[in-house]
Amino acid sequence: MLISTRLTEQLGLKHPIMLAPMDLIADARLAAAVSRAGGFGLIGGGYGEETWLTKQLDGVGDERVGVGFITWSLAKNPRLLDLALERHPPAIMLSFGDVRPFADKIKRAGAKLICQVQTLAHTRDAVASGADILVAQGAEAGGHGVSRGALPLVPAVVDAAPDAIVVAAGGIADGRGLAAALMLGAEGGLLGTRLVACQEAASPADAKDRIVKAAGDETIRGLIFDIARENIWPRPFTGRVLCNRFSEQWAGREEELLVRQKEVAALYREARAKGDFDIAAVIAGEAVDLIHDIPSAGEIIERMAREAAELLAAAPSRYGLGR
Amino acid sequence: MLISTRLTEQLGLKHPIMLAPMDLIADARLAAAVSRAGGFGLIGGGYGEETWLTKQLDGVGDERVGVGFITWSLAKNPRLLDLALERHPPAIMLSFGDVRPFADKIKRAGAKLICQVQTLAHTRDAVASGADILVAQGAEAGGHGVSRGALPLVPAVVDAAPDAIVVAAGGIADGRGLAAALMLGAEGGLLGTRLVACQEAASPADAKDRIVKAAGDETIRGLIFDIARENIWPRPFTGRVLCNRFSEQWAGREEELLVRQKEVAALYREARAKGDFDIAAVIAGEAVDLIHDIPSAGEIIERMAREAAELLAAAPSRYGLGR
Repeated sequence: MLISTRLTEQLGLKHPIMLAPMDLIADARLAAAVSRAGGFGLIGGGYGEETWLTKQLDGVGDERVGVGFITWSLAKNPRLLDLALERHPPAIMLSFGDVRPFADKIKRAGAKLICQVQTLAHTRDAVASGADILVAQGAEAGGHGVSRGALPLVPAVVDAAPDAIVVAAGGIADGRGLAAALMLGAEGGLLGTRLVACQEAASPADAKDRIVKAAGDETIRGLIFDIARENIWPRPFTGRVLCNRFSEQWAGREEELLVRQKEVAALYREARAKGDFDIAAVIAGEAVDLIHDIPSAGEIIERMAREAAELLAAAPSRYGLGR
Repeated sequence: MLISTRLTEQLGLKHPIMLAPMDLIADARLAAAVSRAGGFGLIGGGYGEETWLTKQLDGVGDERVGVGFITWSLAKNPRLLDLALERHPPAIMLSFGDVRPFADKIKRAGAKLICQVQTLAHTRDAVASGADILVAQGAEAGGHGVSRGALPLVPAVVDAAPDAIVVAAGGIADGRGLAAALMLGAEGGLLGTRLVACQEAASPADAKDRIVKAAGDETIRGLIFDIARENIWPRPFTGRVLCNRFSEQWAGREEELLVRQKEVAALYREARAKGDFDIAAVIAGEAVDLIHDIPSAGEIIERMAREAAELLAAAPSRYGLGR
């Protein structure tokens, strides 16, 4: 029993599930595992290390995967897009920034243009740039995002982009979230945190364990980790991470942290290198409540798709409808 | 074709839709209209005006309506709960504060105890107090709330309270949102903003018009309006309102606003009295994107229930399932 949507048709997928192109985490191994399981894997082009990206593009073998970029960062090194397009990927995803300088080139190369949007203003820009697929990302998501909740944002994006295929992101970690996304008018779900806590993800074991143990009340969206790692994003983007000793110490004291940035950044770098997640951030979203294990990417995708399909198939009888 | 859930069964409803007990807005007229349409109307007990509450309780006639209280405010005037319980309502809803001092009295009086929760910590407290129904409210909601998004919060509350009936709140304004809430494991939806923009709501016409015209990008959650009206809520509760000239002027300048509170409060009172919504707040949530008209409460409820029922009934064929 497979869920069929315009997304599965357009990208030739078995399941309407996409991997968030997370910087460093979404590497060849994870992206290929997601595509092999019937979802759509996307390599996280991140902040622009050509060597790393080339290695991942080489590493996916025959699996059909896309590549996602942080748009404002790509603008500093547009050659990365050429590197990706040379491989003729089915799709390129652009998130966080002005897509106009890249949209035509992507479409001319025959790749689908996927734009991640966090507001209706972003949606209008993406539609004007000819986006084929819009990922409507709610602020529940781990990592960078803005402020709107997915539940009302997704249908608003659907209404504002009637010709595009909309995919929901933020807060989806099981079949319930995927089925809900479809009811909102999305045609699939994009997973970040859920696929960090999987066997193939490159994250340290302690980071995965913390995702499994954390409750959704224990995440925070803000700037402090970006300040500490000397990588402050342009407005309006902030990042969601698990609360830890560092966030307890610094949340609400951003100005002081900026004043002491050099000193703290040295400590922070050391903590990241050691894997000390009382200081270094574990990037994760509010869906951590729904994550209780660290299976393979394939099992996560199969399980989620099966649960969503069962919920949707059973809906008429469960609610006494269609009699 | 009617949606049947444990909520409709337990409260004897035609539709799994509840009215948010909004202070002053959810009066006898609106609460009765919602119950008459087959939903569950709740009078907004608000900040404790006994005369107002008695008038509303008298005014609902034979309609079965509940009463909702702001829990931390009720604690200052617990006699209001007695006024409500004397009418033998089917349910009492408590939001925003410690329910323990009131839970036993409500249940002994034979009313169902509805607790609104915004976090898993709230959920645990509500379950320990014997709540029959939990309203899981996302930060998308208009008015007071906390920070978690509804899409991941609702299933987390369902998992944390397996014996309770869960209702989703925040961001629901059409049948898509209601159907999504059910897929998340909720058994109904609670509506605030959508039922402010209806014929029977006591809000000024200009406030309703602004809800219809506003986009979801144009709301803000914070403290500035509570500071201006000299009604600062206990932590962690903040309020979501439409952005206006006042919010543009003061957002991010809360400390200065506190210093000048008396002076600004006088201006603010005057603006509220005049209905000047460039200064006074229109309380509304992110679902304003989905609100395009000002029909009767009955039409809103019928339309939403029909749309959700159609989405759920059509799901197996729409997604190629159940063949």
